[in-house]
Amino acid sequence: MKRISISPKDFQTRIHHLWYHQSLLLSSGDFSKNEFNCMTVGWGSIGTMWSMPFVQVVVRPTRYTHQFMEKYSDFTVSAFGREYQKDLNLLGTKSGRDGDKLTETSLTPIKSSIVAAPGYAEAELVIECKKMFSSTFKPEEFLDPTIEDKYPNKDYHTVYYGSIEAIFGTEKYLATNINSDS
Amino acid sequence: MKRISISPKDFQTRIHHLWYHQSLLLSSGDFSKNEFNCMTVGWGSIGTMWSMPFVQVVVRPTRYTHQFMEKYSDFTVSAFGREYQKDLNLLGTKSGRDGDKLTETSLTPIKSSIVAAPGYAEAELVIECKKMFSSTFKPEEFLDPTIEDKYPNKDYHTVYYGSIEAIFGTEKYLATNINSDS
Repeated sequence: MKRISISPKDFQTRIHHLWYHQSLLLSSGDFSKNEFNCMTVGWGSIGTMWSMPFVQVVVRPTRYTHQFMEKYSDFTVSAFGREYQKDLNLLGTKSGRDGDKLTETSLTPIKSSIVAAPGYAEAELVIECKKMFSSTFKPEEFLDPTIEDKYPNKDYHTVYYGSIEAIFGTEKYLATNINSDS
Repeated sequence: MKRISISPKDFQTRIHHLWYHQSLLLSSGDFSKNEFNCMTVGWGSIGTMWSMPFVQVVVRPTRYTHQFMEKYSDFTVSAFGREYQKDLNLLGTKSGRDGDKLTETSLTPIKSSIVAAPGYAEAELVIECKKMFSSTFKPEEFLDPTIEDKYPNKDYHTVYYGSIEAIFGTEKYLATNINSDS
């Protein structure tokens, strides 16, 4: 997949579509040590915090990826074309505890440019992030009572903010008309 | 400003540019009672949480807008063209405690379609949100020690997530090539 380096300022996306309809693959660990895990995520956000471009992801403490997110200081989120939806579905339902689930897919982890966590050769978007904030949802913070229904096992998500260190994407993620409104 | 209704699925933006380089106007209160306040914000995010499209904003408890965010159940974020940058600068530095700062600008608050907080006639984007989560940053959650430098007065931000109830924007916020990757 031909990806170009995109500055956070020029990064453009269908933001809700990217998370919810397309999904992202969250990866954490150290590629060079072959010690990493990934999981498909549909809940998160992108924006600016403390003047830094950032990605927000949430991981339940019961997920295998959680221990990688806690141990390592960085992570990536990667997006893929529709032809990889089957792979994302598998990576979102199977656990890395039960073996190397990536070998059951057509995805190829690759070295990132800055962070230890891998990207993927087939990805149309890879965002490299460095952890800068971590918190845990508390039920008393939910203002909509239906949110509690998402946690029948009380396994409230850990929230991570990662500063964006690099973005590599296909041309569709590069803003057009940059000169007209930058 | 000619705005069209945009579904969250088809909403497209330069997400870091929108927050950091362009800025957004956060408004909270009840327009029909002429009881509301607004402030310019540059830190926040957009994405999906608990399967709902959402906007995350942060407000220091020392800001006048904070009491409106606490009292009312909804808010809006609005974006403007470059010709209103001077107005946004004023609304980000002056406090509504000292009088109706909007009268010092060229902005016209207008009734929203769903929420009580106003939008603006001159906005190129208005996102109407309903509060669904609220938390407060704690210094022990900062993994990057330089973040603490943003809080010399220890006035850690309150974080609000608002589910997106409606989006009105100019055509640049409507994704092109929707059929090719939806």
